[in-house]
Amino acid sequence: MTGFSDGVFAIVITLLVIELRVPAHRPGELLAGLAEEAPAYVAFLVSFGYLGVIWLNHHALLRLIRGATLGLNWINLWLLLGVVVIPFPTAVLAAAFTHEGNDHDRRVAVLLYALTAAAMSAPWLAFFGYLRRRPALLGEGISVAHVAAQRARPVTGMVLYLFSGALGWFVSPVLGVIGIVVMIVFHALTSEGVRRRRPHRRAERR
Amino acid sequence: MTGFSDGVFAIVITLLVIELRVPAHRPGELLAGLAEEAPAYVAFLVSFGYLGVIWLNHHALLRLIRGATLGLNWINLWLLLGVVVIPFPTAVLAAAFTHEGNDHDRRVAVLLYALTAAAMSAPWLAFFGYLRRRPALLGEGISVAHVAAQRARPVTGMVLYLFSGALGWFVSPVLGVIGIVVMIVFHALTSEGVRRRRPHRRAERR
Amino acid sequence: MTGFSDGVFAIVITLLVIELRVPAHRPGELLAGLAEEAPAYVAFLVSFGYLGVIWLNHHALLRLIRGATLGLNWINLWLLLGVVVIPFPTAVLAAAFTHEGNDHDRRVAVLLYALTAAAMSAPWLAFFGYLRRRPALLGEGISVAHVAAQRARPVTGMVLYLFSGALGWFVSPVLGVIGIVVMIVFHALTSEGVRRRRPHRRAERR
Amino acid sequence: MTGFSDGVFAIVITLLVIELRVPAHRPGELLAGLAEEAPAYVAFLVSFGYLGVIWLNHHALLRLIRGATLGLNWINLWLLLGVVVIPFPTAVLAAAFTHEGNDHDRRVAVLLYALTAAAMSAPWLAFFGYLRRRPALLGEGISVAHVAAQRARPVTGMVLYLFSGALGWFVSPVLGVIGIVVMIVFHALTSEGVRRRRPHRRAERR
Repeated sequence: MTGFSDGVFAIVITLLVIELRVPAHRPGELLAGLAEEAPAYVAFLVSFGYLGVIWLNHHALLRLIRGATLGLNWINLWLLLGVVVIPFPTAVLAAAFTHEGNDHDRRVAVLLYALTAAAMSAPWLAFFGYLRRRPALLGEGISVAHVAAQRARPVTGMVLYLFSGALGWFVSPVLGVIGIVVMIVFHALTSEGVRRRRPHRRAERR
Repeated sequence: MTGFSDGVFAIVITLLVIELRVPAHRPGELLAGLAEEAPAYVAFLVSFGYLGVIWLNHHALLRLIRGATLGLNWINLWLLLGVVVIPFPTAVLAAAFTHEGNDHDRRVAVLLYALTAAAMSAPWLAFFGYLRRRPALLGEGISVAHVAAQRARPVTGMVLYLFSGALGWFVSPVLGVIGIVVMIVFHALTSEGVRRRRPHRRAERR
Repeated sequence: MTGFSDGVFAIVITLLVIELRVPAHRPGELLAGLAEEAPAYVAFLVSFGYLGVIWLNHHALLRLIRGATLGLNWINLWLLLGVVVIPFPTAVLAAAFTHEGNDHDRRVAVLLYALTAAAMSAPWLAFFGYLRRRPALLGEGISVAHVAAQRARPVTGMVLYLFSGALGWFVSPVLGVIGIVVMIVFHALTSEGVRRRRPHRRAERR
Repeated sequence: MTGFSDGVFAIVITLLVIELRVPAHRPGELLAGLAEEAPAYVAFLVSFGYLGVIWLNHHALLRLIRGATLGLNWINLWLLLGVVVIPFPTAVLAAAFTHEGNDHDRRVAVLLYALTAAAMSAPWLAFFGYLRRRPALLGEGISVAHVAAQRARPVTGMVLYLFSGALGWFVSPVLGVIGIVVMIVFHALTSEGVRRRRPHRRAERR
């Protein structure tokens, strides 16, 4: 499960760069062509950060468990479906904010990104719920109460990604993007938060 | 063998998303462009589910054996050939059901998908047959009778994928697709079935 | 070294399928379009088989050694350079034998493939030569004489790939392709040959 | 951390070859088309060598530590961001030196490559600095003084990549490329240098 999941994460995070293409340009205008692609670079960085944060959270997730069952493998596949999909709304977002899109397209693109991110929270909720009911699967020193408390994170994610999408659709696409970035920072900080609860944290084996 | 195979699965399942492209569209028509691509999303989801199920089955397959031999490595390469090919009939299927194809193209596409899926069953049959004749390779607690019984699964697969292809070709492409989806669900359920036979199932090491 | 190498092999063997594209075609002519691409499918299968054989050989190579040194890592990178390059001459070959090329282009494409394959033999020679001079690196039960004898394989490869290239350039491109396929079969058989020399072969850990 | 990082390296080094495309050409002019793409092959080889050297350095980096912490995982993600980005300036460089670019575009492309490479040195500095302040994370036989001394390498990298970029921008793009190649050779040699300091070097487990 770890090998397969790490492989998927490694490929998805690397595939993002494929969207960064040499801009078509007339001789002598490479610099201007690159500058025009700036929104694509921002979209790349946001999604790289997002996937990096998800990897850190997933990495911590797998350390909660002693081993995998068929049920966990299914939930993990569901979770990876969301991971694999991310480059697509990223590309849509990048295209909408470059020359190809108008304001309406940007609202569509932000909404699509937010809905994808919200949908991605569901398997995390399922993972924690599944584990909470099966204490025998928990790793050493992991309490059921700890796992149960973690459910607040995907729930917050779902609510606030949907809110960011609504913000982007009804108010302003740029505000929607800001809402999404705030959520990614939240997930980055709570990945840290989860680990702070364990008093005797040891460095893991590399 | 595990590392290489997991890498191939991780890449193929991720490459599927490359077929999801930002639709070419006029400014303000991104939403309409996305809606038009709906068959491509369905094809993506079907193939993601299909590859996920194959991974679960393959994962269970490798747990039957104690170690690899050159013969098993060859059969595994043959099996991975089928895995690697899947994005191609998927893309053909997606293209045929979007604007690019007419009814005849859809019959061709469904038949191609079904033939690929049927051909993919052959190495599984070879794997179980090879193992059945070499009990020394079996993992702890795995009986020859159990392995021999598993041969029914790829045989069912071959017959019913061919039937789905004939259905799609002679009767209706949509019925053919439904037949293929039913087969994928069957493989998903028998992956579970295989494991139910072992009474003292333990969680595997992650 | 194993993880990185297996990753590279898994990706390269999977990337081959990217060259298989849905043929551009008018509605109702998907089947004709697919048939026209037949040379691309042959090129795909040849290169899949070739990479599979190289992986088997590489897998056996890493079982000769007890551990890696900086020198072996460098030779391994050199070897992987050849592996990574293969999809490029494969695509050139496929294009030359489809509609895009005439007889002269086919000669160029076969020569390019043969030169790439010949160049790929060099790091294997270096690997065996390096190991022969450092018996301390050899795995349990592997003799220096065994390693020294293996040098015949890449030497044969270099000579016969060059001969196939000359055949394709001066005589007939199709003959050149046949020569290349014969060589791949030779490498497949000698991968087996190498392992037959060890009398007490045990199944490796998966 | 190792599995994920090795996956990213394996994919990035393999993706480089995707930029090598079959040249569009008239029948009979494949050879001329290939010859015209020569700068793309040079760019491919430079970036393959560059990524190979980074992998060797990263491989040695992970051997300095006993295990990973959240902080090291973050720095590692930052480091991988640079790795993942490399194919993009490589493609820009290749395009600028082929038919598509004039002298000004080449200066832009060399500057972009040099700035990327300079920016990539920052996380290495952070890694060594982080480790220096946490001796408990160091692997067996690794001294704090050794780690502290390594900081000279990324600092040299940053200064000299910036110098190469200035050279390419203000003086001559070709000189800038030469400067970059010299730096890659320097990193190749200091990867060796780092390991020479440890007197009782043992072969690592493969």
